[in-house]
Amino acid sequence: MKLIIGNKTYSSWSLRPWVLMKHFNIPFEEILVKLDMPETKAEIAKYSPSGKVPALIDGDLSIWESAAIMEYLNEKYPEKKMYPTDLKQRALARSLSMEMHAGFGKMRERLSFNVKKSYQNFDFGSAQSDIDRVKVLWTEQLKVSKGPFLFGEFSIADAMYAPVVGRFVTYGVPVDGLVKNYCEAIMNLPALKEWYAGAMKEDFEAKDHI
Amino acid sequence: MKLIIGNKTYSSWSLRPWVLMKHFNIPFEEILVKLDMPETKAEIAKYSPSGKVPALIDGDLSIWESAAIMEYLNEKYPEKKMYPTDLKQRALARSLSMEMHAGFGKMRERLSFNVKKSYQNFDFGSAQSDIDRVKVLWTEQLKVSKGPFLFGEFSIADAMYAPVVGRFVTYGVPVDGLVKNYCEAIMNLPALKEWYAGAMKEDFEAKDHI
Repeated sequence: MKLIIGNKTYSSWSLRPWVLMKHFNIPFEEILVKLDMPETKAEIAKYSPSGKVPALIDGDLSIWESAAIMEYLNEKYPEKKMYPTDLKQRALARSLSMEMHAGFGKMRERLSFNVKKSYQNFDFGSAQSDIDRVKVLWTEQLKVSKGPFLFGEFSIADAMYAPVVGRFVTYGVPVDGLVKNYCEAIMNLPALKEWYAGAMKEDFEAKDHI
Repeated sequence: MKLIIGNKTYSSWSLRPWVLMKHFNIPFEEILVKLDMPETKAEIAKYSPSGKVPALIDGDLSIWESAAIMEYLNEKYPEKKMYPTDLKQRALARSLSMEMHAGFGKMRERLSFNVKKSYQNFDFGSAQSDIDRVKVLWTEQLKVSKGPFLFGEFSIADAMYAPVVGRFVTYGVPVDGLVKNYCEAIMNLPALKEWYAGAMKEDFEAKDHI
């Protein structure tokens, strides 16, 4: 399989399936396409008929949208248990994942994902309500699961929220208690550390991405 | 099971799981909460801890986000075959569904879902690129499936795009060929007709919803 991704510095959507595959030891070839370059569109089109990243190529199949890629991996490797095995827990994991997939637009725009930046006293402005909602979601879920991850073991729901943790760190969002523990668990995940290390090696600078 | 929905006139996210459940003859109690009223928040909170509609209540389980609700129904009723049975086809169905779930913001904003309105010579403006992308997605998929629906039989992918067809009709988006046939197949679906008939009975007027 090939996973087509954007720059590690700021492609938060690419991070999600990449970290999931690394964490669950699924072998894949990484194809990184630099975004915002004159040749970007043509480069992506070579691999991904949808013209989008991330995309997963498995033989003659090309899947786009991070959530669809992760559902496919879950179906292809059921023994990896990327979602909770309990039907109801899995439904909740998808509720949280889908809320991230379609939502938090203000947070994504104002606190754009960028591994290399670091802020203090950042003005969260209109993103505050998104930040508050994320904290409530995490806290309620971590109370039930007891951590370290949203549903106990690392799951697709955590892959979905990993870049949000990254944003919290970059922009200095105040955290404590269960939320703080969760952010630390995510940032200490070997797969996430590997992504961040890759990003730090990129010499490419570009505009912010949501 | 209880499905908590917003007004049928303009709650496009509620339409999706509602039409899916009606089409596949899944019994449920419909609880309609009027949106944009002083009591709306409290009413929703009675049924949906997430504070969101649509929500599906199944015993002590409350699921939110239309995409998560539909995945749960697919798992609870595997014999209904709400997704294509082939793994690769299912992956594509999810790619299309997820692109709708997270995308087409300009189309959703400018062509807000409203069953009771009808326009001629509407200026699509910044929504044109979203409209074009939807048409490409549908056409490519219908070429392969031969219709009448995106993956042959009606599936979750069609439930996801049904409100887009509704928008195309409301705002007079020009269609022909496969796209025209598809729009007709969706609009002729008994479950969709039932939703529209319910909307026409609503005497409630409110602001546009995306």
